Amino acid sequence: MANKNNELIIGVDLGGTKIYSAVVDRQGKIIATARKKTKSELGFDVAVKRIADCIFEAAENAQVDFTSIKAVGVGSPGPLDLKAGKIIETPNLKWKDAPLKAKIEEYVKKPVKIDNDGNVGILGEYAYGAAHGAQHLVGLFIGTGIGGGVIINGELLHGYNENAGELGHMILDPNGPKCGCGNNGCLEAFASRLAIERDIRIAEINGVATHVFEGMEDKSERLRSKRLAEAFAANDPAATQAIENSAKYVGYGVASLLNIFNPEVVVLGGGVVEAIGETYVKLVRQVAEKNVFAVALRNVRIVAAELLDDSAVLGAAMLGWQIAK
Amino acid sequence: MANKNNELIIGVDLGGTKIYSAVVDRQGKIIATARKKTKSELGFDVAVKRIADCIFEAAENAQVDFTSIKAVGVGSPGPLDLKAGKIIETPNLKWKDAPLKAKIEEYVKKPVKIDNDGNVGILGEYAYGAAHGAQHLVGLFIGTGIGGGVIINGELLHGYNENAGELGHMILDPNGPKCGCGNNGCLEAFASRLAIERDIRIAEINGVATHVFEGMEDKSERLRSKRLAEAFAANDPAATQAIENSAKYVGYGVASLLNIFNPEVVVLGGGVVEAIGETYVKLVRQVAEKNVFAVALRNVRIVAAELLDDSAVLGAAMLGWQIAK
Repeated sequence: MANKNNELIIGVDLGGTKIYSAVVDRQGKIIATARKKTKSELGFDVAVKRIADCIFEAAENAQVDFTSIKAVGVGSPGPLDLKAGKIIETPNLKWKDAPLKAKIEEYVKKPVKIDNDGNVGILGEYAYGAAHGAQHLVGLFIGTGIGGGVIINGELLHGYNENAGELGHMILDPNGPKCGCGNNGCLEAFASRLAIERDIRIAEINGVATHVFEGMEDKSERLRSKRLAEAFAANDPAATQAIENSAKYVGYGVASLLNIFNPEVVVLGGGVVEAIGETYVKLVRQVAEKNVFAVALRNVRIVAAELLDDSAVLGAAMLGWQIAK
Repeated sequence: MANKNNELIIGVDLGGTKIYSAVVDRQGKIIATARKKTKSELGFDVAVKRIADCIFEAAENAQVDFTSIKAVGVGSPGPLDLKAGKIIETPNLKWKDAPLKAKIEEYVKKPVKIDNDGNVGILGEYAYGAAHGAQHLVGLFIGTGIGGGVIINGELLHGYNENAGELGHMILDPNGPKCGCGNNGCLEAFASRLAIERDIRIAEINGVATHVFEGMEDKSERLRSKRLAEAFAANDPAATQAIENSAKYVGYGVASLLNIFNPEVVVLGGGVVEAIGETYVKLVRQVAEKNVFAVALRNVRIVAAELLDDSAVLGAAMLGWQIAK
């Protein structure tokens, strides 16, 4: 019998701007990690090569023989075709019908399992993080876009075509701003990092003071969450207004999700939440609690993801364990 | 061994304006029915007596001995405390902490099981109606208020405090009209029969032509769905506008629910849908299909409830079978 203690999984968090991979053991401990920019604009084939490199790099950093890696789990933006292992389309990466699982398997010669980024995020928090022990969870991950994931009675909600949990595309105002998905007024269009950035740029044009672009070589570059957090901490008027608006709309979304799912724990994660921290979560909580039936709040927690940047790689690792031989 | 074929259940649909009860056999066949006005404004105790009378009347109409009734199932507006068998609060009936199960049991001397009106509605359609055979369903019931119910893998979604499925209280615009629940811009505040009536009255004040109140002794009386349907069929300007707006917002709600749950079937029921019919469902479908990821529509049906007024009593009867000795 093989020594199961030497078996490892690599979990991959494929995001709109970066790839993050981690070598994870049976206890959910991260042995080593690696990071790369996604560079999705260079096309799917280039990005897949970068994903594979990021996987190999994490294994190198862990100083383990690649044979001890039993499988790879990947959290990807959706919608996905889970059975075929393909990305159907992604508003943020602009890829269509991309054979993610097969291409990564070609490079790494290990079994690969993929799932929605929101699903792996909530899976990580369920197994090792803020929601450990709860059986009814909703996760919202506010980054470049907004991913979601739902666990009911301890099981991921996948739905009929396995694409449930697109919580970022709840409509919060049909006359609201255009969303990356093509519709108007989705939660993502109000509250994602891209929405916050858009609101700051509009506010600046309208004469609201902001220092958020200061020191940037190219002012048209995307604003990172870290820069947003710094501006928020410094009470930058345009940034504060945009971030508070994001939290407010996430609060409305959470109110709806509480009435819809009546979960025990709502986990808020992703780059924006991580960077701004508890102040953001508190704003969300205030708005959500004002807009929901009292019973849907009874003993219910609305909390920040505990694993921070690691919830998706740890959830992805759990996918890997599901297929590890 | 008792002859199981003689066993019957009474299912009760407790609504904001009327009580509807039905004697149902093992095959889901309705033997006889009875109806009464709820008269909720006279208080909980009066209404419970009316519920009991409606139950006895259905049994009388069925011409069966009351001993053959094994249990009673009741669909009630929520939120409910299922374990205690109580209504916690209901925006439309204005009751709080009302011991529905115990009080009905006192009168009828049979075991009673209660669940949310939306839950029994979708349960009825799941077992005997439009969604028969599907395992992932979402139901929206558009009447005085808007009830919802969700079935995932063949099981009702109840959630942590057993109050999941309050789909009428999804927020569709935080700056929208006031809802009976106290919040703003819930689906119910845009699309229920009361919302349609409100919109017609506002339109009339604003000079939009309407014949909808013609022939009513008291113009301040509630508009019945039948009257709305007649006005819609006659192209009454104010009624048409209000009903189309209702369908449009239900469409936005369905779009969100498709992205959230990715169900196989969305069932639209309740007095408004029943009265207006397929034209209403078609409008909902058009708006929903425009505002959702393509994958969430693959082989997905958005259909009218087939059991019409009977979906809730048949679902309630299924609750009864669950506790029948």
